Amino acid sequence: MKQLVTALMVGVFAALSGCASAPWASGKTTMSHAVLQVSDNDPHKWNLALNNAENMQEALGKDNIQIEIVAYGPGLNMLKADSKVAPRLNAALDANVELAACATTMRKMKVTKADLVGGATVVPGGVIEIMKRQSEGWAYIRP
Amino acid sequence: MKQLVTALMVGVFAALSGCASAPWASGKTTMSHAVLQVSDNDPHKWNLALNNAENMQEALGKDNIQIEIVAYGPGLNMLKADSKVAPRLNAALDANVELAACATTMRKMKVTKADLVGGATVVPGGVIEIMKRQSEGWAYIRP
Amino acid sequence: MKQLVTALMVGVFAALSGCASAPWASGKTTMSHAVLQVSDNDPHKWNLALNNAENMQEALGKDNIQIEIVAYGPGLNMLKADSKVAPRLNAALDANVELAACATTMRKMKVTKADLVGGATVVPGGVIEIMKRQSEGWAYIRP
Repeated sequence: MKQLVTALMVGVFAALSGCASAPWASGKTTMSHAVLQVSDNDPHKWNLALNNAENMQEALGKDNIQIEIVAYGPGLNMLKADSKVAPRLNAALDANVELAACATTMRKMKVTKADLVGGATVVPGGVIEIMKRQSEGWAYIRP
Repeated sequence: MKQLVTALMVGVFAALSGCASAPWASGKTTMSHAVLQVSDNDPHKWNLALNNAENMQEALGKDNIQIEIVAYGPGLNMLKADSKVAPRLNAALDANVELAACATTMRKMKVTKADLVGGATVVPGGVIEIMKRQSEGWAYIRP
Repeated sequence: MKQLVTALMVGVFAALSGCASAPWASGKTTMSHAVLQVSDNDPHKWNLALNNAENMQEALGKDNIQIEIVAYGPGLNMLKADSKVAPRLNAALDANVELAACATTMRKMKVTKADLVGGATVVPGGVIEIMKRQSEGWAYIRP
C-alpha cells in the first residue's frame, strides 16, 4: 500500500513538474531558442536580423540560446555567397547561429547549395521550418 | 481504499497525458494549424502568403493542416473581389484555405462583404483573430 | 493514511488545473496579453500598431488585456518625443498600453530616455523582451 502511494506521489510530482517546466510557464529554462524569419529582399532587414541574433547572444550568453535564421521567398538572397551581408553571415556561423535556406524557394529561384554562403543549411521548406520551431516552443521573431 | 487509489491513478495519468499531448510538447499531432497575417497593401506580400499556404499544404498534405489567412489594415485590399490576386484567392478557397477579413478594417475602409471575393469570411477583428489562434496553439506566420 | 490520500488528491487537482489553465489550452482566462513589435522606421506601421492596440482593447475590454508595444531597431523613432505619432502615444499610455524602448538600440542611435515620450519604459533589449513575453504565453503581433 505504502509503495503504491509513493508511486502515486512520484506520478503527481512528475505531472506537476512536467507542467511547470514547460517553456512558457517558467523562466528557469537554461536554454532559450529563437527562430528568426527573413522573407524580404531587403539588406536592411538582413542586417536587422543579424543584429537581433547578436543582441540575443550578448544578453543571454552565447551558450544559453540557440538561434536559427530561416530565409525564404525573396529573403533567400540574404544567404547567397554574393550577398551584401556575406561577411556578417560568416561571423554569425562562427557564433553558432544557424542559417537555413528554403529548398522550395531555391528550386523556384534556381539557386543551388553551391550558390549559398558556405555553412548554410538547407531545409525542405522555410515556412514549415518556422512552424515546426514554434510547435517546439521556440520564440518567433519576424524582424 | 483501493478504489480511491485507482481513482487517483486515473487522475495522475490524465494530468500526465494532458500535459504530454500539448501541441508544443509532441510532434505526434496529426493536424497542424497556421494563421498567416496580411497587413500590408502589397501584392508581393499577398503572393508570398499564398505561396506559403501552398507550400505548407504540399509539405504536410492538404488534409493535415488547417490554414487561415487573416487580412487586416492595409492588407484588407488583398481580399477584395478586384484584388490583383483574385484568381489565386479562388484557388486557395478551393484548397480549403480560409480567408478572413477584419470587420473593423472593413468599416473604416467602407468595404462591405459584397466587395470581397466570394467565400471570404468576416471576423470581428483581424488582430483579435490572430491572438485567439495563437492562444489555441496555432503557428503564427507573418510573411 | 487518509490525510496522505487527501494531500495526493489536492496534488492531482493542482496538476490538472495547472495544465488546464494554461493560456493555450483554455479560452476561459480573463486576462489576455499581447506584445506588438515595431521595428520599421515607418509611421504607417506605427499607426497600424496603435490601431491594433486600440482594437484589441475595444474588443476585449481595456481591463481584460495587457498590451506592450516594443520598439527597437529603426522602429525606435516611434517612441521619440518628436515622433509623428506622439499625440497618439500619450493616448495609448493613458489607456494603459505599455510603450517599451530598446536600450541597445538607444545606445547605438545615441537616444536617451529624455528624448523619448514621457511614460515610455526602457527595456534592456527589444528582441529579448519579445522573446520573454512569448515564453510567458503572450500573443505576438508583428504589424
